[in-house]
Amino acid sequence: MKYELYYWPEIQGRGEYVRLALEEAGAPYVDVGRGARGTSAIMKMMDAHKDTPPFAPPFLKAGKLVIGQTANILLYLGARHSLAPKTEAGRLWVHQLQLTITDLVVEIHDTHHPLGPSMYYEDQKAPAKKRTAEFWDERVPKYLGYFEQVLAGSGGAYVTGRRLTYVDLSLFQIVAGLRYAFPRRMKAFETDIPGLIDLHDRIAARPNIKAYLASDRRIPFNEQGIFRRYKELDI
Amino acid sequence: MKYELYYWPEIQGRGEYVRLALEEAGAPYVDVGRGARGTSAIMKMMDAHKDTPPFAPPFLKAGKLVIGQTANILLYLGARHSLAPKTEAGRLWVHQLQLTITDLVVEIHDTHHPLGPSMYYEDQKAPAKKRTAEFWDERVPKYLGYFEQVLAGSGGAYVTGRRLTYVDLSLFQIVAGLRYAFPRRMKAFETDIPGLIDLHDRIAARPNIKAYLASDRRIPFNEQGIFRRYKELDI
Repeated sequence: MKYELYYWPEIQGRGEYVRLALEEAGAPYVDVGRGARGTSAIMKMMDAHKDTPPFAPPFLKAGKLVIGQTANILLYLGARHSLAPKTEAGRLWVHQLQLTITDLVVEIHDTHHPLGPSMYYEDQKAPAKKRTAEFWDERVPKYLGYFEQVLAGSGGAYVTGRRLTYVDLSLFQIVAGLRYAFPRRMKAFETDIPGLIDLHDRIAARPNIKAYLASDRRIPFNEQGIFRRYKELDI
Repeated sequence: MKYELYYWPEIQGRGEYVRLALEEAGAPYVDVGRGARGTSAIMKMMDAHKDTPPFAPPFLKAGKLVIGQTANILLYLGARHSLAPKTEAGRLWVHQLQLTITDLVVEIHDTHHPLGPSMYYEDQKAPAKKRTAEFWDERVPKYLGYFEQVLAGSGGAYVTGRRLTYVDLSLFQIVAGLRYAFPRRMKAFETDIPGLIDLHDRIAARPNIKAYLASDRRIPFNEQGIFRRYKELDI
């Protein structure tokens, strides 16, 4: 079975956490939004499921199943591609961690869109500066400090111990994204999270991920996605 | 087995979605934060799980398991208390819906805290007004319109059809909360979502929920929770 990923073709966004899992697993998939029919294929698919519609991309077609919400897709893929523990307790734990990453991703997005997703960044620059300051003063230390603690306590090279999970892949993306969006702030902060930085580097070096990152399947970071580089926010 | 719910004692907050599920199921539980040891019991419990710590309340102790993140707790409870479909496809679908409610809850919180959770509301009143306007112009119609559509398409009285799930309980809470926080705005909007309003009323009338709402186990809405009534935001 070939998976079909439905996500915006121009950005990494929330779809990237799914792409990284599919790539690491070596699972065959089509990135439908980046195909010839582009976003119209996404819209058509949303219309085709009027009774159980996804609220928004990303969603994954797996045979007859259409699964929406990033963390939910990873819950599904993790069980099928050895990217999550086999026990119920272990699966709930990595899903819990992924949901905390989901919360962090919202807060990252809110740094440039504190007044909401419908207004342009240019129309909310002043509140974006305040939100970004609070994000780096309070929220980044809390979130990344938490994941650093979990990693240190796992007794292994990965967040749950000896085996890689989709959470490790997502944390790679968080570090890569924060480095892109806030190079100066992140550089100053990295000494506080040596474990996460090392995890990022080890994930980047994994054969499947390394090949993916070097390919044109990896969309470059840009100012339409979650992680945006705005000089004025990166003091 | 008696569940232990760990959540702040003063607010409904994110814990309320779990309380509603436990109450509807008639599952025995202790609301630990509201007991004699209060929040110190919550802190002690977080410290006791240094290797797999919850990021924040709510979390649920179920035997040896400690489960964090509201939607994750509901995923667990839904399977055990007939508050979710039995098939994998059905479980993923209701979890997907719950994660969309999770996103909505963040946006509700952001109406009064657009500059971030660490600053007081009083210090972000002007941006809160802008964010709230956008929320009611764009986001409420999108989210509640979506759930209205799903309910209409379910072919039954509940979101997934003939049987109640934890998503129905959470939608009850969303309607109740928006009515509390924004009585004028919500009154004007309710004609657009007759199905959800009817669902709210039917949930409120269910014996276990009715008894819960009338008890002192239900914390009243107040201005420390997610749903806050600030006159200046409810034009």
